[in-house]
Amino acid sequence: MKVSQPTRLTMVGGGSWATALVKILSENNVTIKWWMRSKTDADHIKKYNHNRSYLSDVQINPRRVKVCTKIRDAFRDSDVIILAVPAAFISDALHGIQPQHFAGKTVVSAIKGMIPGANQLVTDWVSEQYGVPAGQIAVIAGPCHAEEVALEKQSYLTIASQGVDCASSVADLLRCRFVQTTPVDDIYGIEYSAVMKNIIALACGITHGLGYGDNFQAVLVSNAMQEIRRFVDALHAKHRDLSGSAYLGDLLVTAYSPFSRNRTFGNLIGRGYTIQSAQAEMNMIAEGYYAVKSIHAINEQFSVQMPIVDAVYNILYEKATPTTEMNTLKRVLL
Amino acid sequence: MKVSQPTRLTMVGGGSWATALVKILSENNVTIKWWMRSKTDADHIKKYNHNRSYLSDVQINPRRVKVCTKIRDAFRDSDVIILAVPAAFISDALHGIQPQHFAGKTVVSAIKGMIPGANQLVTDWVSEQYGVPAGQIAVIAGPCHAEEVALEKQSYLTIASQGVDCASSVADLLRCRFVQTTPVDDIYGIEYSAVMKNIIALACGITHGLGYGDNFQAVLVSNAMQEIRRFVDALHAKHRDLSGSAYLGDLLVTAYSPFSRNRTFGNLIGRGYTIQSAQAEMNMIAEGYYAVKSIHAINEQFSVQMPIVDAVYNILYEKATPTTEMNTLKRVLL
Repeated sequence: MKVSQPTRLTMVGGGSWATALVKILSENNVTIKWWMRSKTDADHIKKYNHNRSYLSDVQINPRRVKVCTKIRDAFRDSDVIILAVPAAFISDALHGIQPQHFAGKTVVSAIKGMIPGANQLVTDWVSEQYGVPAGQIAVIAGPCHAEEVALEKQSYLTIASQGVDCASSVADLLRCRFVQTTPVDDIYGIEYSAVMKNIIALACGITHGLGYGDNFQAVLVSNAMQEIRRFVDALHAKHRDLSGSAYLGDLLVTAYSPFSRNRTFGNLIGRGYTIQSAQAEMNMIAEGYYAVKSIHAINEQFSVQMPIVDAVYNILYEKATPTTEMNTLKRVLL
Repeated sequence: MKVSQPTRLTMVGGGSWATALVKILSENNVTIKWWMRSKTDADHIKKYNHNRSYLSDVQINPRRVKVCTKIRDAFRDSDVIILAVPAAFISDALHGIQPQHFAGKTVVSAIKGMIPGANQLVTDWVSEQYGVPAGQIAVIAGPCHAEEVALEKQSYLTIASQGVDCASSVADLLRCRFVQTTPVDDIYGIEYSAVMKNIIALACGITHGLGYGDNFQAVLVSNAMQEIRRFVDALHAKHRDLSGSAYLGDLLVTAYSPFSRNRTFGNLIGRGYTIQSAQAEMNMIAEGYYAVKSIHAINEQFSVQMPIVDAVYNILYEKATPTTEMNTLKRVLL
């Protein structure tokens, strides 16, 4: 579907990435129905024009953005749906939505995670659950901390879809003063890389927490790129340059940045926190925690050599100690 | 040449990387003649067993390491020469050394820079000036801050040589408790990548100094990997995986680390320092400053598309302002 201007858009999710996307979209000729679960947050935005819980400095333009807490209302008369809640919550968020509510709409996943249990990419799950054709589904990827979007720091997004028009029109929607966008077709490669990078960031955090330094992290990330390539090639072989922003860049911004939830979660684990206490300390979901379980399960079928994923999985789900796993891992890296 | 144990080794250079390499080599069965220009530094090491100017916490073992300030003495009876001074100073450091002094020796460059003026890789220059055969020349590469070696943080080095035995024996010499080493044959790819990464780190510093954020840096580094590939492929086409530690890893540790001289130098330039005042402030050589001139000159012949190198060159040598160059650059990145 060619998305025509002015576009009527639904944003699903009230977190920091959703808030950043609302800010970007508000730069363009888009009207937004913004769904969030929390009525308190929604009421606060209606009254004060900013999200009290995330990126609270971002001004919300009330002429462009209508906040609501009823998902069916949010979907009504919309051309484009952007999904921006953690993967673990997407099913809950869409409660009451049927395939016909998605009919004719472009669906964009801004989620970098997999559906827990189903071990499915978000886009595959949307396609299967709601019958959305592949040509109308896109993902937003690229190295992009929401916090820097809030500050209008120059950023880049890559929009991937099997539908060429779909990728282009979503790329047009998200291009603005401080964001450049590029449409591409490798939706599987980009979505799996985005999921994997959260696991790698978790591994970086664990090693940092254990006292490993920058030399080790550089080697870990280099080896991770090779691990991502092996895995993605095994699942969806295709010529792709993994040094692109949507692959390597996305990994770098997550693995090296203090903003990264996954790195922070890993750091706590490396320092000896239990999973429960690390989660309590952060009060946020680290997508990598769920992602590693899904990727590990998927890989049972493919048997790709993935020592970094295995190490993180063993630490988080098999009670292996970080010290032992990283001692094993460091011998296979090069 | 197969380097047999115990190896008699000459270290040329008294800086932090030379000091770190002396520490690594002292873990193995190697006797070291350590040449440095400064008689004061040399005398201090003889008396107190540590280098007062660099990595002063590293204990120097006087039974293994003999310090000297006469380069011919340092070369005498040596099996392996390691060159570890900035590229701009190597010619001075080797003053008085003739081709016959190199005869039969393995020569290892630990220098990540190019000979200014000659625009040559250090190994090509050594080969041409002193007639050392390619099979006896190696380079040490890999993401390895000297400061972390001093702390015995787990590190990885890649040893490249066109001589298979040469690469292996140097890799054996440098492998120790906290350093893993891998021998490879892509000496040109690795040496040019190592030179390029200093320019990229400089670019990262400039953008940071200008106020660009982590999102932009991740895109800059991703695009840089593609720029490095284009350049290295144009000069020495070969199948190589640039996500290896010696390529990507080396770039990461330099571009992302506060220890990086090149990043620091670039940061000062981005913040408005003149080149002279930035150099005075740092009191150290940023190899990227010379490297960008050499790479730019070499590329006049190849015309590889290198927008990042061009931007840095224009800022440092053509009086272009960082703001203008980065405004141009940000439009071609993706």
